[in-house]
Amino acid sequence: MTTMKAMTYYGENDIRFEDRPKPTIIDPTDAIIKMTKTTICGTDLGIWKGKNPEIEATAREKTGEWNGRILGHEGIGIVEEVGSAVKNFKKGDRVIVSCISRCGSCENCQKQLYSHCQQNGGWIMGYMIDGTQAEYVRTPFADNSLYILPDNLNTDVAVFLSDALPTGHEIGVQYGDVKPGDTVAIVGAGPVGMGCLLTGQLYSPSTIIVIDMDENRLAMAKEMGATHTINPNKEDAVARVLEITGGRGVDCAMEAVGYPATWDICQKIVKEGGNIANVGVHGQPVSFELNKLWIKNLKITTGLVNANTTGMLLKACECSKLPMEKLATHHFKFSDIEKAYDVFKHASETKAMKVIIEY
Amino acid sequence: MTTMKAMTYYGENDIRFEDRPKPTIIDPTDAIIKMTKTTICGTDLGIWKGKNPEIEATAREKTGEWNGRILGHEGIGIVEEVGSAVKNFKKGDRVIVSCISRCGSCENCQKQLYSHCQQNGGWIMGYMIDGTQAEYVRTPFADNSLYILPDNLNTDVAVFLSDALPTGHEIGVQYGDVKPGDTVAIVGAGPVGMGCLLTGQLYSPSTIIVIDMDENRLAMAKEMGATHTINPNKEDAVARVLEITGGRGVDCAMEAVGYPATWDICQKIVKEGGNIANVGVHGQPVSFELNKLWIKNLKITTGLVNANTTGMLLKACECSKLPMEKLATHHFKFSDIEKAYDVFKHASETKAMKVIIEY
Amino acid sequence: MTTMKAMTYYGENDIRFEDRPKPTIIDPTDAIIKMTKTTICGTDLGIWKGKNPEIEATAREKTGEWNGRILGHEGIGIVEEVGSAVKNFKKGDRVIVSCISRCGSCENCQKQLYSHCQQNGGWIMGYMIDGTQAEYVRTPFADNSLYILPDNLNTDVAVFLSDALPTGHEIGVQYGDVKPGDTVAIVGAGPVGMGCLLTGQLYSPSTIIVIDMDENRLAMAKEMGATHTINPNKEDAVARVLEITGGRGVDCAMEAVGYPATWDICQKIVKEGGNIANVGVHGQPVSFELNKLWIKNLKITTGLVNANTTGMLLKACECSKLPMEKLATHHFKFSDIEKAYDVFKHASETKAMKVIIEY
Amino acid sequence: MTTMKAMTYYGENDIRFEDRPKPTIIDPTDAIIKMTKTTICGTDLGIWKGKNPEIEATAREKTGEWNGRILGHEGIGIVEEVGSAVKNFKKGDRVIVSCISRCGSCENCQKQLYSHCQQNGGWIMGYMIDGTQAEYVRTPFADNSLYILPDNLNTDVAVFLSDALPTGHEIGVQYGDVKPGDTVAIVGAGPVGMGCLLTGQLYSPSTIIVIDMDENRLAMAKEMGATHTINPNKEDAVARVLEITGGRGVDCAMEAVGYPATWDICQKIVKEGGNIANVGVHGQPVSFELNKLWIKNLKITTGLVNANTTGMLLKACECSKLPMEKLATHHFKFSDIEKAYDVFKHASETKAMKVIIEY
Repeated sequence: MTTMKAMTYYGENDIRFEDRPKPTIIDPTDAIIKMTKTTICGTDLGIWKGKNPEIEATAREKTGEWNGRILGHEGIGIVEEVGSAVKNFKKGDRVIVSCISRCGSCENCQKQLYSHCQQNGGWIMGYMIDGTQAEYVRTPFADNSLYILPDNLNTDVAVFLSDALPTGHEIGVQYGDVKPGDTVAIVGAGPVGMGCLLTGQLYSPSTIIVIDMDENRLAMAKEMGATHTINPNKEDAVARVLEITGGRGVDCAMEAVGYPATWDICQKIVKEGGNIANVGVHGQPVSFELNKLWIKNLKITTGLVNANTTGMLLKACECSKLPMEKLATHHFKFSDIEKAYDVFKHASETKAMKVIIEY
Repeated sequence: MTTMKAMTYYGENDIRFEDRPKPTIIDPTDAIIKMTKTTICGTDLGIWKGKNPEIEATAREKTGEWNGRILGHEGIGIVEEVGSAVKNFKKGDRVIVSCISRCGSCENCQKQLYSHCQQNGGWIMGYMIDGTQAEYVRTPFADNSLYILPDNLNTDVAVFLSDALPTGHEIGVQYGDVKPGDTVAIVGAGPVGMGCLLTGQLYSPSTIIVIDMDENRLAMAKEMGATHTINPNKEDAVARVLEITGGRGVDCAMEAVGYPATWDICQKIVKEGGNIANVGVHGQPVSFELNKLWIKNLKITTGLVNANTTGMLLKACECSKLPMEKLATHHFKFSDIEKAYDVFKHASETKAMKVIIEY
Repeated sequence: MTTMKAMTYYGENDIRFEDRPKPTIIDPTDAIIKMTKTTICGTDLGIWKGKNPEIEATAREKTGEWNGRILGHEGIGIVEEVGSAVKNFKKGDRVIVSCISRCGSCENCQKQLYSHCQQNGGWIMGYMIDGTQAEYVRTPFADNSLYILPDNLNTDVAVFLSDALPTGHEIGVQYGDVKPGDTVAIVGAGPVGMGCLLTGQLYSPSTIIVIDMDENRLAMAKEMGATHTINPNKEDAVARVLEITGGRGVDCAMEAVGYPATWDICQKIVKEGGNIANVGVHGQPVSFELNKLWIKNLKITTGLVNANTTGMLLKACECSKLPMEKLATHHFKFSDIEKAYDVFKHASETKAMKVIIEY
Repeated sequence: MTTMKAMTYYGENDIRFEDRPKPTIIDPTDAIIKMTKTTICGTDLGIWKGKNPEIEATAREKTGEWNGRILGHEGIGIVEEVGSAVKNFKKGDRVIVSCISRCGSCENCQKQLYSHCQQNGGWIMGYMIDGTQAEYVRTPFADNSLYILPDNLNTDVAVFLSDALPTGHEIGVQYGDVKPGDTVAIVGAGPVGMGCLLTGQLYSPSTIIVIDMDENRLAMAKEMGATHTINPNKEDAVARVLEITGGRGVDCAMEAVGYPATWDICQKIVKEGGNIANVGVHGQPVSFELNKLWIKNLKITTGLVNANTTGMLLKACECSKLPMEKLATHHFKFSDIEKAYDVFKHASETKAMKVIIEY
């Protein structure tokens, strides 16, 4: 059997659930994984909508042709085959697939800046190479990019360890220096904002304010640990944050949306000496009020996940009492992945946060 | 003798060298310092030009009247008198006056965020209270704001420890995480940019690129340790930085001017995983290209000096072979302070960097 | 009324509950606090047993006489009077008294090494000056040493913020770099070990092993969050830790007793790259197996609490769901403080952890 | 041509310069390097003297036989051949060989604790596998263990980047937190102590005291940047350090010898809040005065080099004005390597620091 089912992107508004050749080992550091669970990321929707024409362009440039790209960069599975240089994994191992591939040896990898691996690494699955929304996936640099799935870890949570939880943790919580007793505001209660909310609690902030326009998501945020929620459609978000914080502003504001308006809330609510951790993917420049903020001793960070804390989070999640599994609002069979896309695409009506796809 | 000479600000374009009452102890934590050397900061010129109308407004609000403000927040002197709660200093001690006053006990001071002291501290001398461009100055929170001047420290360098060197060090070099072997770009070769250049070398970066439009200042930068200089009037600064760094960009870009154009250079030359340390004082918002930079794992910092490294720098300067003293380009008698202002105001013609005023 | 009741140390095995003069302001930075709750520290028992002859010796050296020392360095109360230089507190404020006094301006205080304040600060109350086990106490450097007691904070927990919780947090947890997912072993389940256990959980380690010979204390540790307990009288503690950790050892071992044998457990159970945080007070040198450990990339720390995280912990405790208040096993009236000493002294029989004394 | 010359260890006091088979690629991640310069480490002398019987024992256990081990873990050369999984290097590249091999993907490598790589990495060349004192060497995990040798780097300094400089930097200077203005003491002026001295200056400490019993080495230390030297045979080292530091002790003491007596100096000269960085290899336990030091808020570190700063040091050395090359006191032809061993073994008479062996 050398074909498999896969969700494939062909161009703007053109994704197809179809038969594709089963992947094979190319480099000695590769592994082939038989997927058992995957999920859909907001980025996948973006690709579908045509936001990433570089996918086709790069393929044409490198290979002279374009025959689609299998989507997906998240999930868990079972090792089917490993290349000759793979030492840490063998056929039959249950594994978590990280969204980030890394050579481990380039200048950036030596700084643990794996998101910017200079040897065909970084975020490539479901983007520059075929991804996880298939029965099988080829993972490059397998020794660096897979994690043994412990028996006692909830398998939905394991799926979130591919991307949503490390992204929230590294780019939101760690870059934002969340500490015990801190006041934190998270602007945006989508999957990544929720990843910030959940992993932020590992450091025991005393106040976590979640800001979003979707009341359903605000209610979910409360269930997952938010101490306060704000709907900017109903009240002045900046004024309300200042009220909650006694006029001081927050120690850390996390931008988890990617619009000028949400960035602007962040720059207006952060306390002197505080942090703005930008997690959102932006499509245009923002106005940065350096005239007011030059004096405030702020730290502002940006970034793509490095997945350098996946192992740490895996251990923390095994024992945590945090309701990580609540991120999974819907479950589908892999044969119903098109339905899953539809539900995820209409999240405000369907109340979808993360949809889990089982094989 | 209860009067003294002082340089006093009365309003836009109105500063006067005149007789003023000699200051006296108000709070038990105060000291009175007989000044022996002072200098002029770019901020003082800004006040003169009318950029800080809040000075008069605040005075009127607090006291109901306005009778001018003595300028200056830098210098060295001899302790003349101390309040009853001052423990670390006594009459006759030779001291460096820090530009930052701090209570030491408010929430911000407990975080060493002294620039934002919540008890009438932060930058107040020559701003919210009378300053150092006088024969005597009252320094609040003397135990926290003065440093014993060691015999073997060059007294011009000691003056730079009031503000220029700690500002460059804390807001440029430390916030910018300069490390051995790093590539650094400093945009702006004024006194604070030079402070970044000099104190940056304490951490042994391998490449320091200084960018400025004044050829004289670029030449000074070379003498003080710059490995490369760029005049954006003569070549494309961004392209040249990329060329010098093999197309990679810099580990750390320091903004030491305060304009949208200089900010823009910084955001275009910083490498993924790198830092932008904003040291400049800005008068308007800037465009922040989050659409390009959200993915680059950057750290961007802003801030006013905390003077929390003054003691460290003092020790480093005592022994350093760095040419810190070259910052002093002109020397004047205190009676000629008006001439000093004139020279400093026309820095591009006079080639002034820091002007030292001796009593 | 100028006298008050106080628990006073006169010499080895000689402490007296007696009338003493009510304290008065000496320095302008002092405050007088009317105590409302206090507690007894293991250190107080040590003084009673004669371990600190330097108390009498120093008093005689400084004043030429010895008339006893009021014990105690923990507690909460109400501000009765403040010196002329005190700015942050006023009569009537409800406050937590920190066990550490600090000038805030000496070289060590500028590094936040308040435990080694060079201006008559550090741990001095109930040691070098009269302490808190009295109706009133004089607190030096009041602006730096008191914390406003929030209305919503359990007042027993507030008492633990004087010493037990910051000591566990700073010297155990922070010096030991406890991170989410870590494996931690705490050797010693007395009040400070419990402080480590409680504050350690603010950082979400996945495994916390508590080692003690007192079964009752091990049971309490389980209630307070330990995932495993070991009684070295019943099993080989080192072997058991290695078994629990899959042969790897722990990321962080905290020594909270102060004996060579407990130190030895720590140095045998720590993983390569791990930390040993010594919190215990030792009476003799220990054997440090550098022949085995030179290669292990360890960090070993020692220290007295700086109380620089008291404010952070206060905020964390206000909102935490951790059972901090369970540390308080017994409550006594101040008039019964001798009974409280007796109960605390016989902790293994009385199952006392911290005894709270109410006025 | 399939044989080559190599310096081979056979047992206590038995090393032979002899013909050996030229190495070949075993794993796809290997490279073969034609050596151009190597050197001798104190560890090599230790092996010769019989301190490491585990070398023969492990070989017999793994392979059932013992036919000697080629010594050496330092040097530079030219890539001769690479395995199929090597991506960063190709035949003809001039490279520095790191003393540490690392898989890059095990738990320890993911923490950058490469010295404790759990996949047959760490220090293995010239120890568990054949080393660099040969015409050719096989380097495992070549992508992670080699560095391109820049044209403008002195090739003797490049050899020191294999071990001596990173060891001094990581285990001495970084673990010891050396900062501008610090006072530092280095106990032991052998090659590693000199590595501490040279790389420590990258961070601009104001005082560097070197302690050794060899006057020649003290003189070399002065030439390389020591501000003070002490010969414990001629004066009381502890008393002298306290005198130099105004009674305060040092911020950082580095132990670069490995004896109880040199450890003891370190624990007696470190200031409260300071660091002891143990770099020396110890053969027996030491007495650790926790009775005096529990209160001093010290950090004590141990470790084997991770070589995680080799790239940083390489960049710093390219531009540094520090006299790194002075470490090389003698140069030999590879055919004279036995003479080089003899000179290095009698360092006190020959005044040898590092001997460079050229091919």
